[in-house]
Amino acid sequence: MSEAPIFQRLALIGVGLIGSSIARAARLTGVAGSIVATARSEATRKRVAELKLANAVVDTNAEAVAGADLVIMCIPVGACGETARQIAPHLARGAVISDVGSVKGSVARDVAPHLPDHVHFIPAHPVAGTEHSGPDAGFAELFINRWCILTPSAETSAHAIERLTAFWKAFGAKVECMSPDHHDLVLAITSHLPHLIAYTIVGTAEELGQVTSSEVIKFSAGGFRDFTRIAASDPTMWRDVFLSNKDAVLEMLGTFNEDLSKLTRAIRRGDGQALFDHFARTRAIRRGILDVGQDSSAPDFGRPHAELPPLPRPYSSE
Amino acid sequence: MSEAPIFQRLALIGVGLIGSSIARAARLTGVAGSIVATARSEATRKRVAELKLANAVVDTNAEAVAGADLVIMCIPVGACGETARQIAPHLARGAVISDVGSVKGSVARDVAPHLPDHVHFIPAHPVAGTEHSGPDAGFAELFINRWCILTPSAETSAHAIERLTAFWKAFGAKVECMSPDHHDLVLAITSHLPHLIAYTIVGTAEELGQVTSSEVIKFSAGGFRDFTRIAASDPTMWRDVFLSNKDAVLEMLGTFNEDLSKLTRAIRRGDGQALFDHFARTRAIRRGILDVGQDSSAPDFGRPHAELPPLPRPYSSE
Repeated sequence: MSEAPIFQRLALIGVGLIGSSIARAARLTGVAGSIVATARSEATRKRVAELKLANAVVDTNAEAVAGADLVIMCIPVGACGETARQIAPHLARGAVISDVGSVKGSVARDVAPHLPDHVHFIPAHPVAGTEHSGPDAGFAELFINRWCILTPSAETSAHAIERLTAFWKAFGAKVECMSPDHHDLVLAITSHLPHLIAYTIVGTAEELGQVTSSEVIKFSAGGFRDFTRIAASDPTMWRDVFLSNKDAVLEMLGTFNEDLSKLTRAIRRGDGQALFDHFARTRAIRRGILDVGQDSSAPDFGRPHAELPPLPRPYSSE
Repeated sequence: MSEAPIFQRLALIGVGLIGSSIARAARLTGVAGSIVATARSEATRKRVAELKLANAVVDTNAEAVAGADLVIMCIPVGACGETARQIAPHLARGAVISDVGSVKGSVARDVAPHLPDHVHFIPAHPVAGTEHSGPDAGFAELFINRWCILTPSAETSAHAIERLTAFWKAFGAKVECMSPDHHDLVLAITSHLPHLIAYTIVGTAEELGQVTSSEVIKFSAGGFRDFTRIAASDPTMWRDVFLSNKDAVLEMLGTFNEDLSKLTRAIRRGDGQALFDHFARTRAIRRGILDVGQDSSAPDFGRPHAELPPLPRPYSSE
């Protein structure tokens, strides 16, 4: 056991919600000797420097990766292939190359062919996030008790996997390895389909003739507002997710549509027993999520509630 | 202006999440001189007495309403008609009769025919709740800054509406009147359809062959867990909602299905621009909800996050 950092030099390509959370957690825990960051837009680079998220902020991906022993691409999955092509000639021997994308099959396919043999490529996906985007949105605690899934190939160096695992564990994350294809199926149901559904229903609400948008907004506390939170996530990131995980998402959509048809039929026929049975069954999976600590049991997600003044209020009819 | 309570005697029929929140808020604000409560099950009545939520807990609906100038049925909408029939002979002259159901057209149709002419029937729906049920789940602050929709008929006494409005405003709620049919359309999109979709997708996740339930639970933080919260709501209440608001729900489902087909086609064709445009558009409605204070802008609904110890952690590969 030593107090040395796990990696000497961490290069972050992209500093949005996830990239800036990694930077903050890395600074706090000391897992990286130094952090060099870059971002595509000058405005983001400027903000990253202002927030002091890195030891150095550089203009190009090539500069960022020079001398780094860990490179993490924190960018939309559709951009990973081209970024890999750019950085490949500049990578240090033995560096670990990773990402944080929500799809792993396409990243493995797009990135691996560009990389030299002397680096270790380990696709990764921390299953964590919020509805906010950009360098200001991140926080060091984002990964605590969340899973980070690694999808190394069978040939990947065990030592490299061990180092990346230790890096994520230092942030409070739990780490599991699986194949890219299985990852993409699991996430299609636990993340991609929920986002697609949320985006759909929020769009539906916006375009109704009989109910105005301002009514939808006013009376959103009955459930709808939770969908709008999910549908407020970054559009570029999610466009890329659906383009990159098309097959698994379409497969889950097929099953979802069958199930929705079944419930729709039960409503149309007035089959109360079928509805009750279904609604009672889905409570169990919620209990499972609470039991393993993947959500809070506080009512309403623990949303803050104002206080009611504990004084008799005078009756006034105004 | 006087410090007298708005109602002398409040009768609560049913003391679940909503009923017990009303009891708590009424005690705290002094809007009712006394509270008498009843519930169908003996276990609930016993718990209500233990929690001291009412001045008296009685065994029958008839006893509960005797001498009450405000009666609120806090029960599933499907039970309101039969309850109205039971209490009708025992209602005090001039009493205000109300409910808290999520559907208003069916309640108006089921209840009104039973009631004597000498009472004032004002269906109501406080658009507030959590995923928890039962007398222990309520809290006095539940209605603060939430809307309570009243659906009186054109003949209802303005004075009675004014008193019930003052009652709900004392709990921090905002009050709006509309027709039962319009209420049912608005809630079909802002509450009923989101619940149906959440119940569907949680059911879908449970029955997949390729992904186990335990994987769904473990990796639920990518969006799915938010749906499980909604799908953990009371099954009896929701069965009744879908049976009672069938037409509006089926209509909204039709529009939703069209929109889902459009996005599905965009995914199948790899039409990134259509996906991006849709995803960017739905952010606006979220901003509207935050602007009018119907949700918190805290990331992740303000879910609590653990703290990361701000100490360099030694590298250990175990």
